[in-house]
Amino acid sequence: MKEFIGYRCSLCSSEYTQDQVTYTCPKDGGNLDVVLDYLEIKKKYQIEDITSRDDPSLWRYLPLLPVKDPGGEGTPLRMAGGTPVYSPPALKKELGLRNLWIKDEGRNPSASFKDRASSVVVARARELKSEVVVTASTGNAGAALACMSAAIGQKAVIFAPKTAPAAKVAQLIVFGAQVILVDGNYDSAFDLTIEASKEFGWYCRNTGFNPFTVEGKKTGGFEIWEQVLLKLDNDSKPACIFVSVGDGNIISGIHKGLKDLQALGWLNQMPRIFGVQSEKSAAIANAFYAGNETIIPVSATTIADSISVDLPRDGVRGVRAARETNGSYILVPDEEIIKGIAALGKVGIFAEPAGSTAYAGLQKAIKDGLIDEKDPVIVINTGNGLKDIKSAMLAVTAAPIIEPSMQALKKHLGV
Amino acid sequence: MKEFIGYRCSLCSSEYTQDQVTYTCPKDGGNLDVVLDYLEIKKKYQIEDITSRDDPSLWRYLPLLPVKDPGGEGTPLRMAGGTPVYSPPALKKELGLRNLWIKDEGRNPSASFKDRASSVVVARARELKSEVVVTASTGNAGAALACMSAAIGQKAVIFAPKTAPAAKVAQLIVFGAQVILVDGNYDSAFDLTIEASKEFGWYCRNTGFNPFTVEGKKTGGFEIWEQVLLKLDNDSKPACIFVSVGDGNIISGIHKGLKDLQALGWLNQMPRIFGVQSEKSAAIANAFYAGNETIIPVSATTIADSISVDLPRDGVRGVRAARETNGSYILVPDEEIIKGIAALGKVGIFAEPAGSTAYAGLQKAIKDGLIDEKDPVIVINTGNGLKDIKSAMLAVTAAPIIEPSMQALKKHLGV
Repeated sequence: MKEFIGYRCSLCSSEYTQDQVTYTCPKDGGNLDVVLDYLEIKKKYQIEDITSRDDPSLWRYLPLLPVKDPGGEGTPLRMAGGTPVYSPPALKKELGLRNLWIKDEGRNPSASFKDRASSVVVARARELKSEVVVTASTGNAGAALACMSAAIGQKAVIFAPKTAPAAKVAQLIVFGAQVILVDGNYDSAFDLTIEASKEFGWYCRNTGFNPFTVEGKKTGGFEIWEQVLLKLDNDSKPACIFVSVGDGNIISGIHKGLKDLQALGWLNQMPRIFGVQSEKSAAIANAFYAGNETIIPVSATTIADSISVDLPRDGVRGVRAARETNGSYILVPDEEIIKGIAALGKVGIFAEPAGSTAYAGLQKAIKDGLIDEKDPVIVINTGNGLKDIKSAMLAVTAAPIIEPSMQALKKHLGV
Repeated sequence: MKEFIGYRCSLCSSEYTQDQVTYTCPKDGGNLDVVLDYLEIKKKYQIEDITSRDDPSLWRYLPLLPVKDPGGEGTPLRMAGGTPVYSPPALKKELGLRNLWIKDEGRNPSASFKDRASSVVVARARELKSEVVVTASTGNAGAALACMSAAIGQKAVIFAPKTAPAAKVAQLIVFGAQVILVDGNYDSAFDLTIEASKEFGWYCRNTGFNPFTVEGKKTGGFEIWEQVLLKLDNDSKPACIFVSVGDGNIISGIHKGLKDLQALGWLNQMPRIFGVQSEKSAAIANAFYAGNETIIPVSATTIADSISVDLPRDGVRGVRAARETNGSYILVPDEEIIKGIAALGKVGIFAEPAGSTAYAGLQKAIKDGLIDEKDPVIVINTGNGLKDIKSAMLAVTAAPIIEPSMQALKKHLGV
């Protein structure tokens, strides 16, 4: 892509060409932002050139992505994204909101938001002719990488903590990746992955390390723009996006997408971004509340495994996504996350705990008066509830077992 | 819908108006086919009127469905269907086929093909102003009904065998349905559901009993037509559709959709339909091979729970779908079903056992010379592998656990 100029460090603003760096800033280890030549893009494309494209997947945004067309036609790699937004009347009523959308990322090929990052990273790996792509993952990022790699025959190695939910680990293996569980947490898997990629020359997809994950995730922001923002009234209050936060990379990705659109002059009004964390994994929220960008590690114990992170690797940009957009961070207890699974389930959306976290955050924000009925709200369900049945069962009461007879049924129903 | 004339019994061909019957033929208990006035439909619509519709979901086919617009905008009820077809180069090569498509029904809102049936049945329940919709289910049909009901606040009751996989049961409950597990098999749940619906006046969705499930499932056939058949060369051999068969209702639904299109003059060439059953649940295949339509119950024990059925409720139409289209029935051992999960996984498609059954059937058909390289083949993956992790793990080797150190990693990799 000609308009992919290079990188800029999110901490020290040092700039690099494409060839100078691969992952983080050599000076301070800061996350790198991909720099695009917006003027050139703008010369070539207008909004309609994007929105009229026939491709329903995230690849409709190829003109705004720093990768070449990855090929892989007719595979899950080409079918990531394009997830629906729901606007459940029952939830609007319950929450007292005029406009509410739930974006269901559970309908991605590997059933989570992470397919966006992995499809773009795999496209990049193809350009670099990498033999192996490796990632650390609590499950979803790995499944996404394994799925997208499988789609085009790319070799993938995944490191996950041995505590990852069974369904997520099964998915990794079924997709044919080489899976190695580590007797430690996500952070130890993360560090090992980086060491291994250095030593073996593998291309490392790690979140908050590889600059292309955000470039994939920004397509979530593009879709919100196309599905919701472009359709808002001109005098609408700014939209409010609620998204769960673990390492800070999804929220940064959404923010990057919106900033890209703003730079192109295609965005009327920047939405406010609300990051939601569990009280038991609150490192980024803590920095937000402290009014700085200093990410102090915590000892994360939340049930929402996808966002259980001791040391967020994209914390600074995560803080900024909320701060620069007049959003906020919201902390919710695990009990509310679990209740959120049932609340979304009741309108037909099955979310994993990290997905219902965003919804629980919205509930709290309304209660605290941060959001009122006129605020158009978008909640992102980041993953499918089928990925974590154990947690889902905490949200509901187990079903009774009866003899298959009318007598037993009537007794059970009390009629 | 004005063009919904009534019903015709699939056994004795007796005809009924809409008001005369609700479920099966009063004379012989045969499954009822919905009769549409194709001439009237044809007067109103041309192919382009359907294919140019903006709606990507199954509701794009509303002009061909015997229900009114069910409303429920912005809910999963309106987002069912519209699933992608993949055309994995690696599988084409492996199987020696020029043209292969896998239709991934795992990307439906509740992650199975059954969403098609349930969304249309719920639409019908709305017309009938039914207070409660009830179904027996091995899991997927129930989850679909629970999901579609939740979407629009319809009350749902689900009876499932207590042996249904945990993920499927969890889904049912999370969607807010009243779930009752019966200490028996699917067939006993089925009978109890019919008794209960009679006694309590509930609207019964049971597969192979309610004529509207096939009307929903036929949209799978419509999508195959639009995504694949319309794009085939004029001199192409007939397409071959491989679909797993349990009670016979999905295969009947696909067949009905294609027959509708044929009656409208919109289908160039009827595809050949291949039903695939497990050797351990082969009641319909047995009738097919015996050259008759007599469905003799079996004692089903296949690992593919979605198609484990002693007494198929839509067996006659299931036999005909293959017989009338110059297709066939194929039996596969459970070991091949399990292997099929890994085979599809390796190209990025995660199938539940009932889904990989269709793929295993294709492999056998090629081996047996029923299919050659020029046959365009469509395989339907009926459900997402996340629904049955236990079976998925049988297809693969569990991942090793290592200490998070380079030393341990190198030892593990043998380098």
